[in-house]
Amino acid sequence: MDERRRYVVLTEGFIADRHAKTAFGVMRYGGDAVVAVVDSTAVGKLVSDLHPHLRCDAPIVATVADALKFQPTSLLVGVANAGGFLPPAFRPRVLDAIDAGLEIVSGLHEFLNEDDEFCARARSSGAKLWDVRRPPDGIPLFSGAAYRVPQVVALAVGSDCAIGKMTVMLELAEAGRAAGGRPQFVATGQTGIMIAGKGIAVDRVISDFVTGAAEQLVLDVPPDTDVTLVEGQGSILHPAYAPVTLGLILGCAPDMFVLCHRAGQKTVEDFDVPIPDLRSLARDHERVVAHIKPARCVALALNTAGFDDVRARAAIATAEAETGLSTDDVVRFGAAKLWTAVAHAAELTDKRQPA
Amino acid sequence: MDERRRYVVLTEGFIADRHAKTAFGVMRYGGDAVVAVVDSTAVGKLVSDLHPHLRCDAPIVATVADALKFQPTSLLVGVANAGGFLPPAFRPRVLDAIDAGLEIVSGLHEFLNEDDEFCARARSSGAKLWDVRRPPDGIPLFSGAAYRVPQVVALAVGSDCAIGKMTVMLELAEAGRAAGGRPQFVATGQTGIMIAGKGIAVDRVISDFVTGAAEQLVLDVPPDTDVTLVEGQGSILHPAYAPVTLGLILGCAPDMFVLCHRAGQKTVEDFDVPIPDLRSLARDHERVVAHIKPARCVALALNTAGFDDVRARAAIATAEAETGLSTDDVVRFGAAKLWTAVAHAAELTDKRQPA
Repeated sequence: MDERRRYVVLTEGFIADRHAKTAFGVMRYGGDAVVAVVDSTAVGKLVSDLHPHLRCDAPIVATVADALKFQPTSLLVGVANAGGFLPPAFRPRVLDAIDAGLEIVSGLHEFLNEDDEFCARARSSGAKLWDVRRPPDGIPLFSGAAYRVPQVVALAVGSDCAIGKMTVMLELAEAGRAAGGRPQFVATGQTGIMIAGKGIAVDRVISDFVTGAAEQLVLDVPPDTDVTLVEGQGSILHPAYAPVTLGLILGCAPDMFVLCHRAGQKTVEDFDVPIPDLRSLARDHERVVAHIKPARCVALALNTAGFDDVRARAAIATAEAETGLSTDDVVRFGAAKLWTAVAHAAELTDKRQPA
Repeated sequence: MDERRRYVVLTEGFIADRHAKTAFGVMRYGGDAVVAVVDSTAVGKLVSDLHPHLRCDAPIVATVADALKFQPTSLLVGVANAGGFLPPAFRPRVLDAIDAGLEIVSGLHEFLNEDDEFCARARSSGAKLWDVRRPPDGIPLFSGAAYRVPQVVALAVGSDCAIGKMTVMLELAEAGRAAGGRPQFVATGQTGIMIAGKGIAVDRVISDFVTGAAEQLVLDVPPDTDVTLVEGQGSILHPAYAPVTLGLILGCAPDMFVLCHRAGQKTVEDFDVPIPDLRSLARDHERVVAHIKPARCVALALNTAGFDDVRARAAIATAEAETGLSTDDVVRFGAAKLWTAVAHAAELTDKRQPA
């Protein structure tokens, strides 16, 4: 028996938008099946018509009722908008899915399980409500135990939000396994958790405990892991989200950073903060932790979406020359090259404990 | 009729400890009366015998029953320990106070209102339970509106936790009012909230919303305020708490910092992280926000507790020479000198909006 979920993904109005990154991540990297998408702005198309790189042929339909013929088990709320609130157009469609008895899976800050109407209707229909972003109880304060894990820890950092930090680490994990390594992807956000099946959405943790949550995640990897690949969040440049980013940087005590950047982007999107040259940005990350433990930028993952291959290769070569970091677009060209850089740096990392 | 609270302060075992800083803050700066302290380790003494600078003559008694003769209205849970959990020795005493019908005021992370036993006993006795650290509902994401407030914003930052950042801002507010200014103290932690009667405990806010919470605090000052004096939290040097500190630094969009340091302290206490020279530390804070808006360190508040006056004056003079910042111990010598530095820097701050 197939125990995987069969998802209807709800993206109403967002199927062409980067805020549907939750949907895109689950389609591209998740272990569950996506059988249909509900989005009235693109009815009749397949996901692959709009986003070939997601490798998802699910049909796009107008309503939850239309999706039921594909025998879904679950409805995925497929957006991760700023603030994490349910878009108003989503509510009637979520209610339809609840009434149809589907499990509802949501990564929003606004919890389904704290919504009286959703809870009441779910009680009637027997639908389950899974709030992926709800942190576990009892997260401890940061203790420093993360400094002493035997695994090499690599953290994705970047010049902005929503530029592909999770994707980079998932691709690195795949490339690492293909190369005979034992990397472990660690999810720190809702989409990553849906894909990995575990993790903590650190941006939902009480701020005093963010570093503690990040520490627990790196303590909790399988013992035979060689490189722990921690999904990054936000950016140290971002006026609103930098504290979450710093919580990861301090809490998971990385040995190295994988710097992520969207080629050509000059400012942090929401606030028009200038992005410094990438060499400086790499150094800035190293400086943030220098007083606590050494951690170096070892690779640059360049997102060249929208470029043709020729322009992408040129952008990669330029960034590589500017930064001195092994650089590639892991979605376009695979992550083998950057995995080599990470694995090489890992070999050079001394994780022995002081006597 | 006197509407002030009459507090019994519960410090059981902590009356000589810096973790009783909640108790000390309310005794020294609060508008409410402290009529007794419950601490079996110092029975028979007055608070002023142990801590003359608190200017509090409340007697120390062994039990809540002993304290009732002073006609308290409320029991204050007088510790702010790491993690914010109720020390085990406190529970029976809190229950005694609940049974006596006293209001219980707590700044712990662990909420009284989520403790079944406390809630049940409070229902029986009619006692109220106030969890000061519970953030308000509906804190928005950071918007950037803090960049456009007409007030000059000064934020306390420091080399470690629990070195007196709140005290510095309370003393500056007092000195500012005495000098004819219109400063406004803004509380960002539980003790500050108990003293000011309002504020948000930013370390209890969900991490994605810390910058938004800090922004709301500076938007919410009285319109005739000239200088907003924001209580600081943690330290950018602290591996566990730096994300909260950064949330304040970014969210309240300060025009200036008041740097706080305990004279002679070389490392962050909990983690043995070295504290850089104070000139570098001042620059490090300026650099954290330099990509977003200018903010300068304008004063150094040196905590010389434990020094005699001669040594304190020498430490102040040395730090002043090293940093080039107006330096003083505001508890020992008052905050007039540092207020002058803050007010002067405020006059030089251009808060006009770009056309």
